[in-house]
Amino acid sequence: MDNFTFKSPTQFIFGRGTQTQVGKYAARCGAKKVMVLYGGGSAVRSGLIQTVAESLDAAGIDFIMAGGVQPNPVSSFVYDAIAAAREEKVDFMLAVGGGSVIDTAKAVAAGVVYDGDFLDFYRGKPVKEALPVGVVLTISAAGSEGSPNTVITDESTMIKKGASGDCLRPVFSILNPELTFTLPKYQIACGISDMMAHIFERYFTKTRDNAVTDRMCEGLLLAIRDSAMRAIIDSEDYEAQAALMWASTLAHNNICGVGREQDWGSHALAHQLSALFDAAHGAALAVVFPAWMKYCIDEDAELFARMAVNVWGVEPAEDKKAVALAGIECYIDFLRSIGMPTTLAQLDVEEKEIPRLVELLFAAGGAGRFKKLTPADAEAIYRLAL
Amino acid sequence: MDNFTFKSPTQFIFGRGTQTQVGKYAARCGAKKVMVLYGGGSAVRSGLIQTVAESLDAAGIDFIMAGGVQPNPVSSFVYDAIAAAREEKVDFMLAVGGGSVIDTAKAVAAGVVYDGDFLDFYRGKPVKEALPVGVVLTISAAGSEGSPNTVITDESTMIKKGASGDCLRPVFSILNPELTFTLPKYQIACGISDMMAHIFERYFTKTRDNAVTDRMCEGLLLAIRDSAMRAIIDSEDYEAQAALMWASTLAHNNICGVGREQDWGSHALAHQLSALFDAAHGAALAVVFPAWMKYCIDEDAELFARMAVNVWGVEPAEDKKAVALAGIECYIDFLRSIGMPTTLAQLDVEEKEIPRLVELLFAAGGAGRFKKLTPADAEAIYRLAL
Repeated sequence: MDNFTFKSPTQFIFGRGTQTQVGKYAARCGAKKVMVLYGGGSAVRSGLIQTVAESLDAAGIDFIMAGGVQPNPVSSFVYDAIAAAREEKVDFMLAVGGGSVIDTAKAVAAGVVYDGDFLDFYRGKPVKEALPVGVVLTISAAGSEGSPNTVITDESTMIKKGASGDCLRPVFSILNPELTFTLPKYQIACGISDMMAHIFERYFTKTRDNAVTDRMCEGLLLAIRDSAMRAIIDSEDYEAQAALMWASTLAHNNICGVGREQDWGSHALAHQLSALFDAAHGAALAVVFPAWMKYCIDEDAELFARMAVNVWGVEPAEDKKAVALAGIECYIDFLRSIGMPTTLAQLDVEEKEIPRLVELLFAAGGAGRFKKLTPADAEAIYRLAL
Repeated sequence: MDNFTFKSPTQFIFGRGTQTQVGKYAARCGAKKVMVLYGGGSAVRSGLIQTVAESLDAAGIDFIMAGGVQPNPVSSFVYDAIAAAREEKVDFMLAVGGGSVIDTAKAVAAGVVYDGDFLDFYRGKPVKEALPVGVVLTISAAGSEGSPNTVITDESTMIKKGASGDCLRPVFSILNPELTFTLPKYQIACGISDMMAHIFERYFTKTRDNAVTDRMCEGLLLAIRDSAMRAIIDSEDYEAQAALMWASTLAHNNICGVGREQDWGSHALAHQLSALFDAAHGAALAVVFPAWMKYCIDEDAELFARMAVNVWGVEPAEDKKAVALAGIECYIDFLRSIGMPTTLAQLDVEEKEIPRLVELLFAAGGAGRFKKLTPADAEAIYRLAL
């Protein structure tokens, strides 16, 4: 176990009907002029944006609306929102949506108070200062509602890159599972794939002796495994959606990652699929992660076998590699059962695209720490995913 | 799953050598005049108090020392410390020790800024304001380093009572497992019993559908189970002590208790043993909890059986009660293996004392929510523990 520091100061407000409290919590955080960011029309059509507006009104808080954030959010939107936020003297960012909206709100929050190009933060500059960000979550997936991270696609290069800073952890996040009832099954499944991937990236580590963190990872994976099909079959199953929403948050606020080196290679491999082919993030991860696992199994067959036994219920056996492979097959079956693609072909990505994907991956800085990938490794993993 | 709010803003600084950073973190929290609370002479003899003093000095922070906090801390010490803190214009409480020291620091922190008897907070008044509290932890047990709670014995009645308030969550907690290397085995075992009990109190609930919280509880219990004997055999096993230290913190910062009603009956039963017979808190819990489990099994045999299977490795079977009982026997064996008492006799408490224990319990307000105990229930549980 490595030394670590951990602080997760976000106030989580979890449960039915909680979105009506957004004004109260924003007021407690000192908000005077809020920019409400959201995505497409569903947040408007469902009445959620209206509810948020009424709650802010009731708390005496002024606000401007900024809709239209796209999945895999891009830098041009952030530049425009920063300009608008400065113009309107916004002092609080409120994200009403999922990972794309929250990540955009964080980019704007950092950019507004920075005298330079906000993309500097996505090129390695740590974020030290930002407007406070609040969240009303509508999709269980990215975990950005509890994390210090944000991912934006730089349109000049089409490279998806991340930035980070403790000041980007939301000051509050309102988590009402009911808000996910109307999501299409495919989006619910993408979210499930994403939250599991956040745990895998932390689980596969070369750091020895992580009894607590290993068990937390396995516990969350079990809760996700047991709730996933319920939510896919009946998206109005409150308890299943509640488990997924809370799991997605804990999967990425780093309580499952402390004290160890993390990998994040599969995320880098998946990001290129999203950037070039606009693949949904969760779907791209569902294609990449099983291939990455198969390729990396010899790095630590015992660890892969442990997950197979403790998460997927594979019988323990002498041959760790066989146990590990059986676990990966269970994971693939699980992904298929919830309707996720597990091959590049299902994303309409052909073999001939692999060199471009590898090139883009290394232009973005390479991938992996559990296994530091060479271009040949990356190519082999993409091939395993064909 | 019930609606909940959760916020754990404590900065945890975990790992080897971290106690030398206490001055830096206190300075970041704006400390100018610190009261350093500690217990007996071991913190002095080990050089820890000297290290803390040097670190505060190096950060330019003035401080006063207040040693002598006793296990099962009492109100008279708190009154004296409040008076001294006011006299010296202390603006930050630093607890160097375990639960008793931290709970005392919290009592002083709340009392200093309150124009009345600090015991009001232990009679039900919520704590809304307090000096900031920092921690250098020396025992893995109580979890007070991450919790909003404090327990003090009111000497006028000899009743142990708790107070709570979000402002009592420490602003930082320095967790160095090396500081627990010199603990006697008995104290390590008491800590293990205590942290497990904190999870049990949260696990046994009538609230339905807690997939995530149930799995987190089970995961932490497994990590404790797997590390306990290692730490008892070799108290300098860093990884085992690290697992116990981090587990003890997560067992009680309430990440394992959100979204559900909690019981806390066994703690109330155990508190009376500490108050009347000065039993170590962890030892009292080791005696009470198995008896409580046996007595309450019919409240939800399925839940007890689940723990038996998922934590103690009992084979699942049709007869849930039999599985549950087998799990409780595993727990008792575990307690014995680490050197904990499991009967009142081992605490030198005789049968004839039970009426007094029951009387004191109900004078303190009764016990239990998973099963709300009547005096007859409490008597039966104490009898089962004979």
